[in-house]
Amino acid sequence: MNMLVDGEWRTDAGAYTNEDGEFERQETSFRDFVEDDPDARFQPEAGRYHLYVSYACPWAHRTLVTRALKGLEEAISVDVVDPYRDEDGWQFTPEKEGCTEDTIHGSDYLREVYQQADPEMTGRVTVPVLWDKAEETIVNNESAEIMRMLDTAFGDIATQDVDLYPEGYQDDVDHIIDDIYGPINNGVYRTGFANSQEAYDEAVHELFDALDHWDDVLDDQRYLAGDRLTEADVAMFTTLVRFDEVYHTHFMCNHQLIREYDNLWPYLRDLYQTQGVADTVDMDHIKEHYYTTHPDVSPKRIVPMGPDPDFTQPHERNELPGGPPEDLLPLA
Amino acid sequence: MNMLVDGEWRTDAGAYTNEDGEFERQETSFRDFVEDDPDARFQPEAGRYHLYVSYACPWAHRTLVTRALKGLEEAISVDVVDPYRDEDGWQFTPEKEGCTEDTIHGSDYLREVYQQADPEMTGRVTVPVLWDKAEETIVNNESAEIMRMLDTAFGDIATQDVDLYPEGYQDDVDHIIDDIYGPINNGVYRTGFANSQEAYDEAVHELFDALDHWDDVLDDQRYLAGDRLTEADVAMFTTLVRFDEVYHTHFMCNHQLIREYDNLWPYLRDLYQTQGVADTVDMDHIKEHYYTTHPDVSPKRIVPMGPDPDFTQPHERNELPGGPPEDLLPLA
Repeated sequence: MNMLVDGEWRTDAGAYTNEDGEFERQETSFRDFVEDDPDARFQPEAGRYHLYVSYACPWAHRTLVTRALKGLEEAISVDVVDPYRDEDGWQFTPEKEGCTEDTIHGSDYLREVYQQADPEMTGRVTVPVLWDKAEETIVNNESAEIMRMLDTAFGDIATQDVDLYPEGYQDDVDHIIDDIYGPINNGVYRTGFANSQEAYDEAVHELFDALDHWDDVLDDQRYLAGDRLTEADVAMFTTLVRFDEVYHTHFMCNHQLIREYDNLWPYLRDLYQTQGVADTVDMDHIKEHYYTTHPDVSPKRIVPMGPDPDFTQPHERNELPGGPPEDLLPLA
Repeated sequence: MNMLVDGEWRTDAGAYTNEDGEFERQETSFRDFVEDDPDARFQPEAGRYHLYVSYACPWAHRTLVTRALKGLEEAISVDVVDPYRDEDGWQFTPEKEGCTEDTIHGSDYLREVYQQADPEMTGRVTVPVLWDKAEETIVNNESAEIMRMLDTAFGDIATQDVDLYPEGYQDDVDHIIDDIYGPINNGVYRTGFANSQEAYDEAVHELFDALDHWDDVLDDQRYLAGDRLTEADVAMFTTLVRFDEVYHTHFMCNHQLIREYDNLWPYLRDLYQTQGVADTVDMDHIKEHYYTTHPDVSPKRIVPMGPDPDFTQPHERNELPGGPPEDLLPLA
């Protein structure tokens, strides 16, 4: 495991774990919140915050989708790391298609951004990162929390009238985000990185049981929480959109393809075709990242041909009650 | 590479290859023929010949299917090796489900059978092997040739009136067996074992171009050579039946599943449901072999859940002209 330990980059961080594989040093936490409150340290302001993402990463992708749905592109800037991650961690390679420089710090590696926030940082260097240009620090690096902030804290700074955490749905949204995390969002990783047949079997069955369940749910409702598009759909989307190209093969989640599901497949296309979403999907970055970055799973580092699913096929989910907010018309 | 060199088992046989990776010693060849000719060394006789196979291996599987279609089960005995192959090569593990001892020699490893045939043997130790109990040697270890012998040399010893190399079709059958070898039968291996992106890309595109072609051909004809079941179908079958469970994931042949093809999928079920064929398919052996025996492809040696295709679904290919010989009625 590669990570920062007391501000230094270590590729032998396994040396700091105990017999149970638990890390023995207190990890640095960036779990602050942007709040629409005059007393808050981090207040919503256009131009103040910045996202570091990888197009490859499903967690970072949640923040990109939310930013697009809310119309926060002008207010919150973004830098994109190289999809290939070696033992030096996420890297800035602006010469590569779809990647950018670190426009804030001019760093070569994302770890330098973490070191800027905390020179004594201990922990993994992950995306997404929500950076505050005013306080020159990391506000938060937990995807569900950043998604929530972008959705709820920026008020009229968001140019689209879109509420992904609507009143009357909030408990459901929180429950669903929790429910799908273990078996689905993280389940594909548990399946693919399982180091024993038993661990694999348990993870893969939980995964497909959960997919079957949500496929049933979506038979007569348009979105996970009912008739409203919510953060729960964003959380589901970034896993489903990677599934057939990556998780099915690379992580051996090969019981069924999403495009073989009666409802999940049109649901996925419905989300993809919601305004702004398609532009957040960079399948080249997604495929390159997984297949070249995990030699313990795909040692040859070859990117497969893949099924190239057509997310633009008509989905016919309009017949169900509800639909996206008016500001989010489907792509023409 | 593991192989016999001058009769000795070597796990460093790469040391015998030149700069181009070509093996530099003359390999032993077992390419004799059973012929229905009084002057022939190997004449057809019930009880004289024996097959060594792996249920996992598509090449060996061809001989099992042919033996079943012809009704040669009583005349030609079979031993089955362990699907897991380590650096000692194919092994006899009679305690394991579906495996047998070496009923002829009582060997622990298949290489001992080759050493019995030629104590100075140089070459790879592969299945299938056609063994002659009378001359105590290997007749042939090339699957297409053994398939042809079982099909054409055993006359009335075969209990079913089945001709898989019928007059008027022979040129076509030979052509098709040749045509599908490179892109399909061997193509899945070229795809999966490719050591560069370029080699992978070339192999995978040839594979799917060829599958697309044969899917078209099968739109208005029941079998590869037309209205008659032939050896060409046997050769295609053993690759197709492994495709969705193994090649799609393990060898990254992930552009399309066989069960997504309009014609190849019902064609595959038609063959599977032809009398005797289903009993030759041991999917547990198939999956265990590939996923646990190739650590350079699947280093974790975990056997995935897989799609579990239902080969017994109705196929409706009866509506096309022709069909199996009367002796090969579909399963009830």
